[in-house]
Amino acid sequence: MNWKMILKNLGMIVTIEGGLMLLPTVCALCYREWFVALMFLATAAVAAAAGTTVVLLTRKGDDVIFAKEGFVITALAWVLMGVIGAVPFLLTGDITSPADAFFETVSGLTTTGASILRDVTAMSRGCQFWRSFTHWIGGMGVLVLMMALVSDASGRSIHIMRAEMPGPVVDKIVPRVRDTAKILYLIYIALTAAETVFLLAGGMNLFESLIHSFGTAGTGGFSVRSESIGAYSPYIVWVVTVFMLLFGVNFNLYFLLLIKKFRAAFGSEELKVYFGIVGVSVAVITANTLKIAGNFSDALRNAAFQVASIATTTGYATTDFNLWPGLSKMILLLLMFVGGCAGSTAGGLKVARVAILVKSARRELAKLLHPRSVSSVRFEKKPLGDPVRFSVTNYFALYALLLAGTLVLIAGEPFDLETNISAAVACFNNVGPGFSAVGPMGNYADYGVFAKIVLSAAMLLGRLEIYPLVLTFMPSTWTKK
Amino acid sequence: MNWKMILKNLGMIVTIEGGLMLLPTVCALCYREWFVALMFLATAAVAAAAGTTVVLLTRKGDDVIFAKEGFVITALAWVLMGVIGAVPFLLTGDITSPADAFFETVSGLTTTGASILRDVTAMSRGCQFWRSFTHWIGGMGVLVLMMALVSDASGRSIHIMRAEMPGPVVDKIVPRVRDTAKILYLIYIALTAAETVFLLAGGMNLFESLIHSFGTAGTGGFSVRSESIGAYSPYIVWVVTVFMLLFGVNFNLYFLLLIKKFRAAFGSEELKVYFGIVGVSVAVITANTLKIAGNFSDALRNAAFQVASIATTTGYATTDFNLWPGLSKMILLLLMFVGGCAGSTAGGLKVARVAILVKSARRELAKLLHPRSVSSVRFEKKPLGDPVRFSVTNYFALYALLLAGTLVLIAGEPFDLETNISAAVACFNNVGPGFSAVGPMGNYADYGVFAKIVLSAAMLLGRLEIYPLVLTFMPSTWTKK
Repeated sequence: MNWKMILKNLGMIVTIEGGLMLLPTVCALCYREWFVALMFLATAAVAAAAGTTVVLLTRKGDDVIFAKEGFVITALAWVLMGVIGAVPFLLTGDITSPADAFFETVSGLTTTGASILRDVTAMSRGCQFWRSFTHWIGGMGVLVLMMALVSDASGRSIHIMRAEMPGPVVDKIVPRVRDTAKILYLIYIALTAAETVFLLAGGMNLFESLIHSFGTAGTGGFSVRSESIGAYSPYIVWVVTVFMLLFGVNFNLYFLLLIKKFRAAFGSEELKVYFGIVGVSVAVITANTLKIAGNFSDALRNAAFQVASIATTTGYATTDFNLWPGLSKMILLLLMFVGGCAGSTAGGLKVARVAILVKSARRELAKLLHPRSVSSVRFEKKPLGDPVRFSVTNYFALYALLLAGTLVLIAGEPFDLETNISAAVACFNNVGPGFSAVGPMGNYADYGVFAKIVLSAAMLLGRLEIYPLVLTFMPSTWTKK
Repeated sequence: MNWKMILKNLGMIVTIEGGLMLLPTVCALCYREWFVALMFLATAAVAAAAGTTVVLLTRKGDDVIFAKEGFVITALAWVLMGVIGAVPFLLTGDITSPADAFFETVSGLTTTGASILRDVTAMSRGCQFWRSFTHWIGGMGVLVLMMALVSDASGRSIHIMRAEMPGPVVDKIVPRVRDTAKILYLIYIALTAAETVFLLAGGMNLFESLIHSFGTAGTGGFSVRSESIGAYSPYIVWVVTVFMLLFGVNFNLYFLLLIKKFRAAFGSEELKVYFGIVGVSVAVITANTLKIAGNFSDALRNAAFQVASIATTTGYATTDFNLWPGLSKMILLLLMFVGGCAGSTAGGLKVARVAILVKSARRELAKLLHPRSVSSVRFEKKPLGDPVRFSVTNYFALYALLLAGTLVLIAGEPFDLETNISAAVACFNNVGPGFSAVGPMGNYADYGVFAKIVLSAAMLLGRLEIYPLVLTFMPSTWTKK
């Protein structure tokens, strides 16, 4: 294990996080929250100083990173960011319990959007900003950001990128990792800016436009209104719906659009399946909730918004879907598992994985009938080799086992099964709100400290797609061969 | 597709089912239920006549069976048995709706034990007997029974046995399929007789001893008491607990005991994992329910009984576990997925599959760290090849997809999520009772006709382990290459 390299990368991450805290500092200054601004500045200064010191002390190591180091760096970086990001919440007194502050920060960074706040409007503007900004940071990934900023000397940082980016197969879109990271962040910034402009045009103020653009871009879901997006006009609801769906699309496709490969972009099989699932779900839920909504346009708007919000694992709400009929709730529950596209900011299993699972299962069925046939499975117009299929089915098994573990560990909490099951599912898939007591109008405040830590771990497992975290905490990773 | 061979086998199955109906006829006669006896006799006669006619008409076909025919025969035989077995319930008027009668019969045959009866004590003795006897028939499998009875001319009937027997790998325990089937049935009959004797010794009358032995042997769970096993003494509760666990063990191990290969039998890895899971679950639930039970001995007895009942997917109850704390309920819910051992009469995924899933997932993790290493996974002291691992992970994916489908199809029913989710899980895994409205003191009576058919299909999918039913209804099975 290359410890120096790991420490160097962690030092850089902490420095970058310190730097990013200057934004909430500025926000607090604008709202004349002097104390809040000071606390953010102090945290930023200490983090940057400590991080830079570590980088300087470790700079003379050899730069070799293998897959193992990539996983360890990613896992430790995310846990560390959760701890450091929680500090301002505690220093400002906006959140008083350390477990709550850690939960809220991890929920932000992993773009889950599950909150322990009973009343978000009571929080200072500076902390509100930071809370939502963590969605934006975590959406595309802070390690990807680091690669975009720092020169790529080792040429091995693809291992870090693979560990942080979601999806069954991650590769560079251009030859150099650094250029890939830059392109992804530029697309990300452009889309976020576009949403902010659309929200401003709808009469939302600048602060709330930024907050909700951050929440949409990272598919996170933190709002500064108790009614979430339900507090705004139908225009705003539709804008957020469209952008949630856009941020649930594989960012590689936007790059293809930029280089004018339109056919390749729109021909994506995952894209078709993704919009297919969304379309069918919206249609069924609109019909199913027509009576409750009263008229077609409200039913369609709420259905489209909620499907987009849950399928992309954002977690915004315009209505209390807890009160919807069973069929609509069941569809939302299953959408939590599917999630958005690979290579997007969304969570869940990812559409690509679900599609591969379906194709792989069908292939096995065909094989039972014709044991000697060698028909191949194709995905995205390419043959799908056994190793990829096998890694996807294995990922699914591991996912189910860890989800079951989460369920048992939080089952001691005094809630009904619906609350506990949906809490575990919503956290593991980075959705945020679940049903019953943790529904869109509820929160996670009443969970105990142990359960909050377990759910934080589940959020990290979901965001980092299991492997980095599990491998880092497996003893065999640390023993020499 | 060898139609003649399929029809011949179906004819034999119908004849055998007719023959088996003579037992409830005798039971009805003993209780002087003349009309009920007549209805069973009439159904038996028609079934035997029709079945024999088909066998005679198709006897001159060629006897070749491939895997495809094995699946089709199994799937069609089970659906047919469900239809014919439902007739006496309707003729006697003990069940009035055809969908209810089909549901109850399929629930019996698949050893699920989910009931649509609001009051089982109102049913005639003949029908009560038949209902429980279907558990016993379905437990070891009627096609296995057919193989034990009919001479094995083709030598290919292993395909039928594989399609009907549960577990990831099914093979003969002795060279001839017919002898294997005979040995399995002899062990099955001996164990059932032993339980009956133990129950009689505890003061249970002969009728109820038979009923509950059938329910235990098939790991079904139908009772003739509204309070299920809760109506009896602690001695009876412990007898049923032990026998439920025994029927959840791979029957091949009993054969090993018979031929005095004790070390091989007790060295079974699946057996150790099975009892490990049961032991830990009992310990946790005993501690968790100590307060509710009031004293240790009651807590232990109820926990042991309920864990044995759910883990073996029997579904008997001694207490309303709906009222247990969340942790205990969550453990029971997860035990429903695991199920008993492969090659037993229990349902669920099977312990062997879950163990292989865990090992396979760990192997993938190790591979991420050391991509070029070739360490092999071992199960039951043998190396576990990629094909077996892959078929297990694929089975799990298909299982999850079909369970999700079942959830959506029954979600339109006006129950809470807990009821609908546990109903689908309990039927798919052949457990029977779930939580909330379908809990141990509830029933499935209030589900609609469509949902009852969907749940019946789920029970068949679970009992036959998916492939036979899905393949039979896949168009490509019927098109010529």
